[in-house]
Amino acid sequence: MNTKKTISFIGAGNVATHLATAFYTNGLTISKVYSRNIENAKLLADKVKATATSKITELNNEGCIYIVCVKDDVIDNLLMNFPIKNSLIAHTSGSVSMNVFEQKRFSNYGIFYPLQTFSKNKYVDIKKVPFCIEANTKENEQNLYDLAKVLTDNVNLINSEQRKHLHLAAVFACNFSNYMYTVANELLINNDMDLNLLKPLIVETANKIKDNTPKEMQTGPAKRNDKAVIEKQIQLLANHSDYKDIYQLITDNIIKDN
Amino acid sequence: MNTKKTISFIGAGNVATHLATAFYTNGLTISKVYSRNIENAKLLADKVKATATSKITELNNEGCIYIVCVKDDVIDNLLMNFPIKNSLIAHTSGSVSMNVFEQKRFSNYGIFYPLQTFSKNKYVDIKKVPFCIEANTKENEQNLYDLAKVLTDNVNLINSEQRKHLHLAAVFACNFSNYMYTVANELLINNDMDLNLLKPLIVETANKIKDNTPKEMQTGPAKRNDKAVIEKQIQLLANHSDYKDIYQLITDNIIKDN
Repeated sequence: MNTKKTISFIGAGNVATHLATAFYTNGLTISKVYSRNIENAKLLADKVKATATSKITELNNEGCIYIVCVKDDVIDNLLMNFPIKNSLIAHTSGSVSMNVFEQKRFSNYGIFYPLQTFSKNKYVDIKKVPFCIEANTKENEQNLYDLAKVLTDNVNLINSEQRKHLHLAAVFACNFSNYMYTVANELLINNDMDLNLLKPLIVETANKIKDNTPKEMQTGPAKRNDKAVIEKQIQLLANHSDYKDIYQLITDNIIKDN
Repeated sequence: MNTKKTISFIGAGNVATHLATAFYTNGLTISKVYSRNIENAKLLADKVKATATSKITELNNEGCIYIVCVKDDVIDNLLMNFPIKNSLIAHTSGSVSMNVFEQKRFSNYGIFYPLQTFSKNKYVDIKKVPFCIEANTKENEQNLYDLAKVLTDNVNLINSEQRKHLHLAAVFACNFSNYMYTVANELLINNDMDLNLLKPLIVETANKIKDNTPKEMQTGPAKRNDKAVIEKQIQLLANHSDYKDIYQLITDNIIKDN
């Protein structure tokens, strides 16, 4: 693949900003940045020396690779109005199937899914981000694979069925563990403490699974099946029925896994 | 306090090893290391130029500070046979009350609780570990506080009632989030993928709460109340009723918190 290919971005949010900036930094040409809101489009376009547009019909360069970085629920509607059907186009969503392109009669399409959570002003080392690639032909797959390789060494071929499970696994590993931090934070605040006490332990818990399976790293009263401690902790949650239910359910599952 | 004081360790496991080594490295004198298993005692004693013993009655130096690093359920029995009652003695457990010393008629006692998960061969930067201190008198509190200050700047006065809630919060933030990683790992393995795909995201999720509350950092289908994705993910878990129950319960709680 000619890495001098140009890329255009559909969307100017966090994902588009991180990807466009990373490609630009790596010497690729960003042609256009589209957003319904022209101000947002301009903000990103200025950073990567591209042209901003709020008209989807202006995305009409056949030599360009189009990367769709918009919210899941607007992908479908956006593709309906997309002016050219034969350029390579890929979306960056973890949960939208590749079929969405076929239904709209695109001929060269795929998935370009960076497995990371991007926040507006927080630096992410893109070299460490795993990318998940899928495409409708081997050639498109190779093109998207090579494109991801410009940014990272961690490129994976993941089909739509796998991607569904991957996205679900990410909900457990990230969204749900973040909720566990929220519960911990509430319990601490209610007792005149704060989460700073637990932050080193939280980061260490996440780091520990780099070289071991999480099952090997499991600790705590449920892992030891320490019924006395479990009973006392359930009593502490007497006035938090929601947290008590969560405590009981996860504890039961950890004990069952022992 | 005279930081030239000597310290003896009761227990020679992970916590004792990390603490004794850290004190020794910082110039303090380790007098004795006790373990029921003399080989374990010797292993640690050799590292810190101390004397190993498997006889509790040999812990009879009145000028020494004793740090108890044994499993919660043997603390009580061990203290029963402890030969001297007036030296400063502290245990390192998150869940055992300070009363355990009073019941055994000790006169100078407290808690010296490092809030970190210690594994045998894994380096922990003790300077970043928060220590929780409690004692039966202001003077003992100051002595334990100063002792912790030798190792870290993050020393906190936490009473027994708070410590119970802190320990419970740690179960949510660490033990339960680790279980979320386990579920994710299972889901990936079942679909020919592995946890390496999610590790950067897991670490980033833990790091994100350094500067923001976890509630502010919550993302995912439940946070967006995206019923279509939630329904699809529940269907994916049709054959995993345990995981489905966890998914449903945590999702309901995140939605309720919105």
